[in-house]
Formats: sequence, structure tokens, C-alpha cells
Amino acid sequence: MGRVYILGGYQTDFARNWAKEGKHISAMLMEVMDGAFAETQIEPKEVESIHVGNFAAELYTKQGHLGAMVLSYHPDLKGIPTARHEAACASGAVATLAGRCEIEAGHYDLVMVIGVEYMRSVDSKTGGDYLGTAAWYEKEAKGISFPFPKLFGKLGELYDELYGLKYEHLAEISAINYANAKKNPLAQTRDWYMSKAHACSTGGYNTSVGGMIRTSDCSQVTDGAAAIFLASQRYAQEYAKKRNIPLEKIPYIMGWGHATAPLLFEEKVEEARRLRQKGEYILPATRKAILDAYRRAGLRGAEDLDAVETHDCFTTSEYAAIEHFGLTPPGEAWKAIEEGEIRIDGKLPFNPSGGLIGAGHPVGATGVRQILDAWRQVTENAGDYQVEGAKRVATLNIGGSATTNVVHIIGVD
Amino acid sequence: MGRVYILGGYQTDFARNWAKEGKHISAMLMEVMDGAFAETQIEPKEVESIHVGNFAAELYTKQGHLGAMVLSYHPDLKGIPTARHEAACASGAVATLAGRCEIEAGHYDLVMVIGVEYMRSVDSKTGGDYLGTAAWYEKEAKGISFPFPKLFGKLGELYDELYGLKYEHLAEISAINYANAKKNPLAQTRDWYMSKAHACSTGGYNTSVGGMIRTSDCSQVTDGAAAIFLASQRYAQEYAKKRNIPLEKIPYIMGWGHATAPLLFEEKVEEARRLRQKGEYILPATRKAILDAYRRAGLRGAEDLDAVETHDCFTTSEYAAIEHFGLTPPGEAWKAIEEGEIRIDGKLPFNPSGGLIGAGHPVGATGVRQILDAWRQVTENAGDYQVEGAKRVATLNIGGSATTNVVHIIGVD
Repeated sequence: MGRVYILGGYQTDFARNWAKEGKHISAMLMEVMDGAFAETQIEPKEVESIHVGNFAAELYTKQGHLGAMVLSYHPDLKGIPTARHEAACASGAVATLAGRCEIEAGHYDLVMVIGVEYMRSVDSKTGGDYLGTAAWYEKEAKGISFPFPKLFGKLGELYDELYGLKYEHLAEISAINYANAKKNPLAQTRDWYMSKAHACSTGGYNTSVGGMIRTSDCSQVTDGAAAIFLASQRYAQEYAKKRNIPLEKIPYIMGWGHATAPLLFEEKVEEARRLRQKGEYILPATRKAILDAYRRAGLRGAEDLDAVETHDCFTTSEYAAIEHFGLTPPGEAWKAIEEGEIRIDGKLPFNPSGGLIGAGHPVGATGVRQILDAWRQVTENAGDYQVEGAKRVATLNIGGSATTNVVHIIGVD
Repeated sequence: MGRVYILGGYQTDFARNWAKEGKHISAMLMEVMDGAFAETQIEPKEVESIHVGNFAAELYTKQGHLGAMVLSYHPDLKGIPTARHEAACASGAVATLAGRCEIEAGHYDLVMVIGVEYMRSVDSKTGGDYLGTAAWYEKEAKGISFPFPKLFGKLGELYDELYGLKYEHLAEISAINYANAKKNPLAQTRDWYMSKAHACSTGGYNTSVGGMIRTSDCSQVTDGAAAIFLASQRYAQEYAKKRNIPLEKIPYIMGWGHATAPLLFEEKVEEARRLRQKGEYILPATRKAILDAYRRAGLRGAEDLDAVETHDCFTTSEYAAIEHFGLTPPGEAWKAIEEGEIRIDGKLPFNPSGGLIGAGHPVGATGVRQILDAWRQVTENAGDYQVEGAKRVATLNIGGSATTNVVHIIGVD
């Protein structure tokens, strides 16, 4: 089975508000495709299959069947296979998995993967309710204002119960993401103000939204799309030749992992308590996705990575990711935070892009945006948020309350 | 690349009304899984990946992330990869494509594919509006009562314009589907009354709902789920050995095709008119999916098939399918209908199960139900609707107004 390469792509400016611009979700799709074709100099007629990752366009924009909608971009796309894939906030990553598999199975040489979400069409309360459909809605979200901050607030409380958790460590995660985002010209919060002192404050500007979770701990409500091209070794070789670059300079998917936990957060809590007794990492599906990716990539662990783009839908999910990637033993993520390891100039930078908190979180686009950012890092195209010399970057895309977990490791030789 | 086998599965009784029973969509998922495990004697711990096909549970039941929800069936499923796939009414088929690819790529030996739709939770007008999200909602469905009957009514008008179309031929399609459904113990309409005379009538019992489309030309609004198991050659061999049957008796996916047309029906009409001038079939993406499936299966065409389970969301879509499968030249489907070729005892039976009109159309489940019915036919498990000696059965699952087209050919040696 040959390698699957990533030829680059494009993302929209995550600070834009498409409803205010009066633009339809189809415009967002067309624009991200336009950008991706222009950036890579790939022609529409070369694309053999398109996969769209999207969480809930039916709710936000009253539009389904997005896989087919992308065909309107160009007549040369007529007749190709398309589909939309969903795993809540991990929709972008599961679309990528589907595309990779088609190439591995030998059906196509060039596949486009698009992640998209149009979220600012509704008020925040309605949007919070829609996001509740990523949990077990009837049991965990119905009638609850902003169910997800509350669920990830509970993850903080769980850490506090099992290991102790100081709020200042969450605040540091928030501050790093906001600081990194200032270096990212497409980040939603690039012009916002946020510091650790601000994150540690409570009151008017930073109210509690669920347990330990304050406003500063939350990712953003974002409109945006991202697109990447996946290619077989054959196509990547031709692509490299045409551009007069060695194949070794083109990033490929070194490894991946995909593991699901039960949908209900309460079931995760029960298991976490059992695992805590055994001294193991408390989110076994998250850990499994990471270990599977390391194994497939032939890596020992975090020590072989140069950066991580992780799913910080809330600071607590990044807190968990830090240790589940193996940067620290269970319960000790705070040490890596205190020692500055996850800073952009640290031992293993987390979210040089600013992540979901800083760069923004257009739900179905996030998994694709993370892989695009990994591509930018390993090709030295990350501009001001470049991690020097990055050759291997991992992404973790999470759907629901750490329910669907998808990891990709993107690298160059 | 080894063959991908189908080990059987299960479907719920499509006549049931789950809202009236007071049961959640999770109950539908658990029940279809229970049935599939029991029917095949496969254990949950053997399943390595699960794919869910679903159109719009977010709208009908306010629940997303169905891929993860299925994990609640059994603790042995914890940690496996899951995802949900959508291509409007072709969601079940695109979920099957994703599962097949994973096996072909060598990642897993046993994959479960589940199609599900819970539709009778809302009144028919609301449901009709939800279905409009499978079209280009803003342009083709917004503010229109029952947009899909109108779109497929236009397909009838298009045939009438290009070739002439007599309503009696559509009525015959309806009557055959209803008649076949009477032999199917899980068909929604098995106890309903419908004849060709009735279908040809107009007025109180059979009103026009869009152009040539009358009530009798429409598929049903259905609650239901279907599940199948896909297996690698290695797993299928062991499975056959344990059950003391030859591997040759286990059906496999001989071929498949997947092609998308532009979402807007008007774009299809323009192209159809051009193709009519050239004497070609008027729905090129539908034709492409069928030809690709023939090619991959190594079949010459319709003459090598024993039956077809096609997507008769309306009689006009079956009318188009009859000729696009190549049973007749373009514009001559009526001849095959008049000559009785598509009857259950005809040259090439269409929808021995009763299809979407007779058996029912739980949108996201249909593509999986079709493949399960193909499996039933080629394993001689179709009971009263068995097509004698069937060895190769094709399925056509369509999303939108003939937008996403997915064909599978299921066969035994």
C-alpha cells in the first residue's frame, strides 16, 4: 500500500461573518475550492473524488447533500463521486479518512477533502442548542443552555476530582492559544485581546459558563471552510516533477488513528474513575487513537513529534490532550504547561495556529484546517507561527465530549 | 485487492411508526443491530468499524453524531472507529462505499454498515420541507410544498417532452411495486390496496402532487433501519468454514459505481436535452454509475443481471432506471414495461421487494436495505419475493433529483 500525500490547500479567513456578508453556504464552498485550486495549481478536471466534512448544515443553513453541492464549482467536476461525512466536531477528520482510504484502495489518485461549517446564521443560544446534537441530545442537551461548555466543564471537574486541577493551568492554555492566533493572519481572534491575567479574571468580561469553564476557555463560534488535496504516490511524483521539487518535500500521512468512546459523558466518567485507579490515561479512546497513529507512523511517541494541532474546543480538552499524547504521565499535564513545553517555542508546541480557541472553530472544517496547518508547518509555510524545523506534526480532532477521536500524523522525510 | 463479502444482516419492519411507539432513534439503532448480530451469529467483539448512513436525523430527531451512538449497543464495541455518512437519499449506499474501502485498503476484516431514518416524528408538510434540503433548498425547495414530488414530476415532463410518456406506464410501475410488496413481510404497504386501475384513477384517492406525479407514484414516508456486515476474504473464509458452507455461497460486491450530477435539477434538464439530440441516455451520472459497476463486475450489461433493486422514490425515477440500466435503448423504457419484463416473473425483475414505493423509504436506510435485499435474493432467502435462481442483483440508490447515484452489484459465483 503506497503512501498518501498531501498537496496543500486553502482555508477561508475565519474572522469573516458570512451571514452578515449575506452569502450562502454554497459561496463558502466555492470560495474555498477556488482558493485550493489556485494555491496548488491543480485543475478541477484532475480531481477524481470529493469528500465534504460537515457537522450540521441542515440545522444552521437548511441545506443537506453538501457533497453534491460542490460539483457546482466547475463543469469539469460533473460525474465524479462525492459524499458528506459527519462525526460532530470530528467531521473534517472523518472526511479525510474516507478520502485516504479510497486512494489506499487504489481507486483514485487525487481526492479533494473539504471541511465546512456556517454557524453565525443563528443566535448563540440556538447555536448552543444545535451543538447539543453532537452529544446524546435527549439526555445531555435538551433544555440545557450551552450544553457543551457544561460537558467540558465536567471534564475539568473530573480532572480536579482524580488529580487536582488549578484554574491557572487552564488559563495558561487559553492565553497561549490567543497569543499564537495573533501570528495567524486567518485566525478569528487575531485582533482580540486576551492574556493569562484576563483569563484568570472572573466577572463581566469572563463569566463562568459551566463548572471550571469560563468564556476565555471556550473555542469560538466560527464561519469557515478548509480544503486539502490527497494524492497517491503516482500523482504526488508527477506533481513534484512538474514543480521541480523532490518528492521527499511533499508531506504524507505517516499515521492515523480513529477510536470512538460511548456518546454519553457519564459513561466516560465511570471508566475514567476505573482507569485512574490503575494509573492509566483516563480517556481510553483518545489514547487509543493517538497510540494507533504513533504505531502506524512508526514513531515512539510525543518525543518524535515537532508540533501538535489539537482539539481545544475548551481548555479542558487541550489539557487532556497534552497528557494523552504522552507529553506527560497521566494527571501531570500541568507540569508541561508550567514548564512552557506547549508554547510555540517550547519542547512540543501545541496549536501554533491558535487552535480552536484562537484560530476559530467552524465545526466541520476544523479537522481539515488542522491537517492543512500541519502541512503548512512541515513545508515551512506557516509564516509567523512557523515552528522551526518542524517535520512531523500530529493533529487530534474530537467529536462530542471526547467521543469520536481522530489523529493524523503529517510528515516529510 | 481481495473481494469484499456480504454476510447478511437485518432490517426493521418498515410498517412500524416509532414515534407512535414512543421510541427514540437510539432504540431503532439498537434493534437493528440486535437483529443483525442474531441473524448472522456474529459477536460485537468481532466488529472492527461501524459506518452509519443517515440523511437528516438532526432535523427529524434533533440528534447528530449517530456513528458514535451505535457504540451504546454493547461494551465490546468501545474504542472502534465509527462515522456517519450522508448523500441525501443515497446515504445508505455511501456508508457502504466507505466500509468497503476500509476492507479493500486492508485495515479491517469485518465492518458493520447501518442505514437509518426516523421520519414519522413530524407532519407530512414539515417532512416534505426537510426532504427539500436534499435539493438546493434556497432555489428549489424553500416555500414550496412537497418539493421532491414536484422535481420528479418534472422528470416525467422531461421524458414526455423528449420522448413522449404515457401515464399508464408510470401506473404500471406503481402497481408492480405495490404487488411485489404484498409478498414482503417487512414492507410498509404489505396490507395496503393498490392496483393499476387505482393508480390510473385521479381524484380523492389519488391526487396530483406535482406534474405527472400522483399519490400512487410516490414512495412512502417510513421509519426504519437496515444493517449489513461487510467482510474481507479472510473473515468470509472463516465464517463459511464455521457454518460449514462453501465460500462460493457467500455473496460479494462484484462491482460498484458512484457518480454525481449537479445538484440543481434545471442543470440536469439542460444536459438531458443536449443528450437527447445525440440519442444518448439523458441522466449521464446515473448511466456512469451503472456502467462503472458493470465494468468493475466484469458484466456486459443488463443481460447479465437477474434482478434489480432500484431507487423508485417516484415512478419516474424507476422509469429512468429501467432504460439507464440498459434494459432498453434511451426513451424506450415503456416497451420493457408493456412487455412485462420488469415484473417479478419477467426478464429482469425490478424491485422484487416492492422498492421504495412498496417496501417503504426510510431515506438513510434505503441503500443498505437494497443491498440486504440483493443478498437475500442471491442466497435464496427472499421468501415469497424470491426471484428464482438469482445470482447477480444490482442496486441503484439515488440522492436528490438523480444527483448522487450509487450502484452495487451483488453476486455469488
